Amino acid sequence: MKLFNYFRSSASFRVRIALELKGLPYDYVPVHLVKGEHKQEKYGVVAPTLLVPTLETDDGEHLGQSMAIIEYLDETHPQPALLPAGPVQRAQVRALAQLVACEIHPLNNLRVLKYLVHDLKLDEETKGNWYRHWVRDGLEKFEKELARLPASTYCFGDTPTLADCCLVPQIFNGRRFDCDFSGLPRTMAAFDACMAHPAFQKAQPSSCPDNEP
Amino acid sequence: MKLFNYFRSSASFRVRIALELKGLPYDYVPVHLVKGEHKQEKYGVVAPTLLVPTLETDDGEHLGQSMAIIEYLDETHPQPALLPAGPVQRAQVRALAQLVACEIHPLNNLRVLKYLVHDLKLDEETKGNWYRHWVRDGLEKFEKELARLPASTYCFGDTPTLADCCLVPQIFNGRRFDCDFSGLPRTMAAFDACMAHPAFQKAQPSSCPDNEP
Repeated sequence: MKLFNYFRSSASFRVRIALELKGLPYDYVPVHLVKGEHKQEKYGVVAPTLLVPTLETDDGEHLGQSMAIIEYLDETHPQPALLPAGPVQRAQVRALAQLVACEIHPLNNLRVLKYLVHDLKLDEETKGNWYRHWVRDGLEKFEKELARLPASTYCFGDTPTLADCCLVPQIFNGRRFDCDFSGLPRTMAAFDACMAHPAFQKAQPSSCPDNEP
Repeated sequence: MKLFNYFRSSASFRVRIALELKGLPYDYVPVHLVKGEHKQEKYGVVAPTLLVPTLETDDGEHLGQSMAIIEYLDETHPQPALLPAGPVQRAQVRALAQLVACEIHPLNNLRVLKYLVHDLKLDEETKGNWYRHWVRDGLEKFEKELARLPASTYCFGDTPTLADCCLVPQIFNGRRFDCDFSGLPRTMAAFDACMAHPAFQKAQPSSCPDNEP
């Protein structure tokens, strides 16, 4: 398999975590978002949406959208499972993942921040406040959801799931913008547990071949 | 089952479509977003995130996040299936759904529009341009993804899927803001096919008990 991705992209990071958790080898193909490499024709052939990441399967299929890719990996390489067995529990894990992927991250990705600055002519401080507002708002929701689940090492249960794949990159991103993570005990305990796991270490931006310190 | 939802909420509409496609009866519990009923204690007990929709299962579980709810319904009531059988095809349908649910809708929901007006002090025209920009940008990506899939009646194949559950409410929403749907032949043909299907008719805002014409 090949993963077209960018070290700092949250959605790319999610998929790298899933690949590492499953111990699946892959070719890392860097697509430099800040240099605009995703908008070049070469990448357009792989991903007409121009979004990263894209997983190229061994059969040459190009799959987009990080959560869809992770579900694909979980269906084709079931062990270790990234979703629990029961339908209610699966829904709970997916809902946690979607709290990050549908409520927080879309408001803070690169093209939205660019629109705030270039189209709306907002200053850096206002952009930063926007960023922190949605991270904080979303993580408070995330914490409330965790609080009604049984005690656990990771977001759900004692092994990492799709929810952890989404949470960890969001915390990394939030740190770059000095977000406030106080008063989120379950969330941050899950994050710390993940970062003590070798798969998350291997997948993080500083471990990527295209990392820029 | 009970669905806590709001007639005009896109995410609610997605779940209503899935329930109707599967022919599952449910109690409709209206939560008036514009009146702020989702922020009241009564709803907070059901959904600590204060987001709609919430599905209450027959066992009294409260499930959030529309795509997670629809996957739950598909796992517990497999017929008619809302995802294809093959892992690649499932990933393709999920990616289409996520193009709407992660790339378009989060930028345009009520609380984001309120932030634009109340916190950023933007005028109605700028808010409208923001709205239309992200709908157009996202639907162009959606169309490109459809263009590399085999010809189909709906978004994917000849029966409605999770992708249609997400697309249709987004088009409804876009119409309210006078979005431009030109040059999106596959997308709009899928939308038209859906609207000729009784499940989509029954689920639409104007068919809801809390509809306000």
